[in-house]
Amino acid sequence: MIAPSDLPNDLRTLCEQLAGRARSAARKLAQAPTFRKNHWLLACAEAIEKQQSPILEANAKDVAAASSVGLTAAAIDRLTLNPQRLRAIADSLRQVAALPDPVGEIREVTQRPNGLQVFKVGVPLGVILFIYESRPNVTVDAAGLCVKSGNAVILRGGKEAFHTNSILHEMLRLQLAEHELPPEAVQLVPTTDRDAVGYLLRMKDEIDLVIPRGGKSLIQRVTTEAAMPVLKHFDGVCHVYVDAAADLSMAEKIVLNAKCQRPGTCNAAECLLVHRSVAATFLPRIGTLLLAHGVELRGCHETCRLIPAARAACADDYRTEYLDLILSVKVIESLDEAIDHIHAYGSHHTDAIITTDIRTAHEFTRRVDSAAVMINASTRFNDGYELGLGAEIGISTDRFHARGPCGLRELTTYKYIVHGNGHIRE
Amino acid sequence: MIAPSDLPNDLRTLCEQLAGRARSAARKLAQAPTFRKNHWLLACAEAIEKQQSPILEANAKDVAAASSVGLTAAAIDRLTLNPQRLRAIADSLRQVAALPDPVGEIREVTQRPNGLQVFKVGVPLGVILFIYESRPNVTVDAAGLCVKSGNAVILRGGKEAFHTNSILHEMLRLQLAEHELPPEAVQLVPTTDRDAVGYLLRMKDEIDLVIPRGGKSLIQRVTTEAAMPVLKHFDGVCHVYVDAAADLSMAEKIVLNAKCQRPGTCNAAECLLVHRSVAATFLPRIGTLLLAHGVELRGCHETCRLIPAARAACADDYRTEYLDLILSVKVIESLDEAIDHIHAYGSHHTDAIITTDIRTAHEFTRRVDSAAVMINASTRFNDGYELGLGAEIGISTDRFHARGPCGLRELTTYKYIVHGNGHIRE
Repeated sequence: MIAPSDLPNDLRTLCEQLAGRARSAARKLAQAPTFRKNHWLLACAEAIEKQQSPILEANAKDVAAASSVGLTAAAIDRLTLNPQRLRAIADSLRQVAALPDPVGEIREVTQRPNGLQVFKVGVPLGVILFIYESRPNVTVDAAGLCVKSGNAVILRGGKEAFHTNSILHEMLRLQLAEHELPPEAVQLVPTTDRDAVGYLLRMKDEIDLVIPRGGKSLIQRVTTEAAMPVLKHFDGVCHVYVDAAADLSMAEKIVLNAKCQRPGTCNAAECLLVHRSVAATFLPRIGTLLLAHGVELRGCHETCRLIPAARAACADDYRTEYLDLILSVKVIESLDEAIDHIHAYGSHHTDAIITTDIRTAHEFTRRVDSAAVMINASTRFNDGYELGLGAEIGISTDRFHARGPCGLRELTTYKYIVHGNGHIRE
Repeated sequence: MIAPSDLPNDLRTLCEQLAGRARSAARKLAQAPTFRKNHWLLACAEAIEKQQSPILEANAKDVAAASSVGLTAAAIDRLTLNPQRLRAIADSLRQVAALPDPVGEIREVTQRPNGLQVFKVGVPLGVILFIYESRPNVTVDAAGLCVKSGNAVILRGGKEAFHTNSILHEMLRLQLAEHELPPEAVQLVPTTDRDAVGYLLRMKDEIDLVIPRGGKSLIQRVTTEAAMPVLKHFDGVCHVYVDAAADLSMAEKIVLNAKCQRPGTCNAAECLLVHRSVAATFLPRIGTLLLAHGVELRGCHETCRLIPAARAACADDYRTEYLDLILSVKVIESLDEAIDHIHAYGSHHTDAIITTDIRTAHEFTRRVDSAAVMINASTRFNDGYELGLGAEIGISTDRFHARGPCGLRELTTYKYIVHGNGHIRE
């Protein structure tokens, strides 16, 4: 942790120094062998498990300050660490150590008719600016993923977690030095001044990518101000469409899971679409179950008729990511109407169909233009671990570079290496 | 071609209409089967070959206007079409038809331990704005690549080629309609007003990607103004490094090819680095050859001593993309110095080493951070066709999304399709 008296007076100079050191660390880290990065990950996991007291003390300061400024109980819970959560943080580092290294990975090899051998090889993106809100586990996760993928990272956490983030960062940094890796491969913006973010977002020659993770206003600000590419998602307005040919008991299970298992996540369902031909059977059943799980229902006219406890939805409801135990519900006439509704109101994040008709399933997956399209599975499976990428740094709803969960490979680019033997072009 | 009287009065409205129609065409085109896109490509090739007269007449108008405003002979040559060039344009469409369709391509399939099947499937980016300068063949090439990859394209060519582009566009559009493809999948900005570009570059919700191709000022303007991602390269400051262990006759052949075969291209060499231990042997030989090919040499002190006809280079020379028969030359002391020079002065486009030492070759390819790194081959091979991608829409020196030559696959993104059987998350 840098003491405030060591900070350069000029915030812009501070940011330039951070970015310059990150660039130089990134060049070194790009060449680091896999075993060294893995040893670092395992040593950090061990340090976090063995040195719990200073972390928990720093965290207690943040929690006390958060309570005194009146943060919500949910926010304080997200901020709070305990021995069990520290073990989970350490375990996630161990999982990253076990994943294959995307740097140097040969993604394609071809031999051209003239004998040239063309290799497409994974290389790091360079310097990543990661801006996130209060959960301190994200500090460690992001650093682990960036370093394993050969990238230097500048971490900018929420001010509520500043003491916790500072001590975690100090541990990660010490271990970098001990493992002959550049200590400035992981830096924490050593001030909570909001203007620092503004300066960093303009440094497109020094920072290759910015990843914002948090509320919509944070992501909006970063998208507007960033001069470099941004990897992000705004909204997760995810749908479950129960088709005319759905297995209705499967549909019940999936709708309940998609809405209730973790309603605060971006891949939780926010809207249920039900084909008219099964509405009279399905809606009263699922309505009862959802109400029993504490879910508030906001539906179309037909929904309200079939589930009297539902209240009328307005058009805005269908566009809203509730992140809460609220679900909008609409009875629709056809597959076409379901797809049109998803395109008009959705956010291209995750949309599911429940059907036993293979042609309808095929049509839905072909036409729905979302990062992940599910057949007979919960929307909650759009997740780096669940889809087999290992850990993830976030989920992208952008079309450029990476779509869906972003893991180690999505934090890299590639170069072509071409082997000739005196080849020239005629 | 839209007659000027049909243009909406308001330029912004015109641009919004263009973009809106492109979005709606893109949704339809994304679902078009491969055979239909290929039939369209082949029919366009035939139309261009069979209807040469109206194309050549329109082109003659552009050429006459260009001569009267005093365009350079080289620029007029690039603008001019003739029967042979029309055949080449038609052939390039046939080549695109023969390439595999990246849309619907299954890029990865995994089965998760819980039985979920995860497919990663190619899908179009959406709407592409393509801004380019005078060569009319680019109009047809870009339209062919965009449509084959399922994208709608808005073409904005140079005003010098407006009549030629308009008639070519009209042919492409007619064939779209004849092949049951959305005619507005290929649109040409129907005005040469520069402000139209400004409006289009702000429409980030309607346009998914902009590709500028042309001079540096065009690319600079687009990069500064675009609200959506940009795929581009600024400079091709490409190096050939002749190592201490180089086969010097191979080095001669490659240096000559890299500099002289087509000096106006972005992958032509602009700087020759020669290891001191071979400089006294190699530089006088290559100097004589290059001078005989009309190449002007700008060298360091040692180069000027060994090649008296070379003039002294300034630091700016080493940063310059000459795109002409000029080469900067520097004698260096070590592989490290070569790599440092390439990082300090290069543009991360294409850099080559000539060496027989496998360890030096490995070190060079590992550490040089360019889109393409060549061993014992001419820099001229960094090209979509030569590297096996088929045709290309441009070469990217960005790190994000695609690096190096961008072909059909680089014009797409992907989505995850997940098959379950009632899967829920626990």
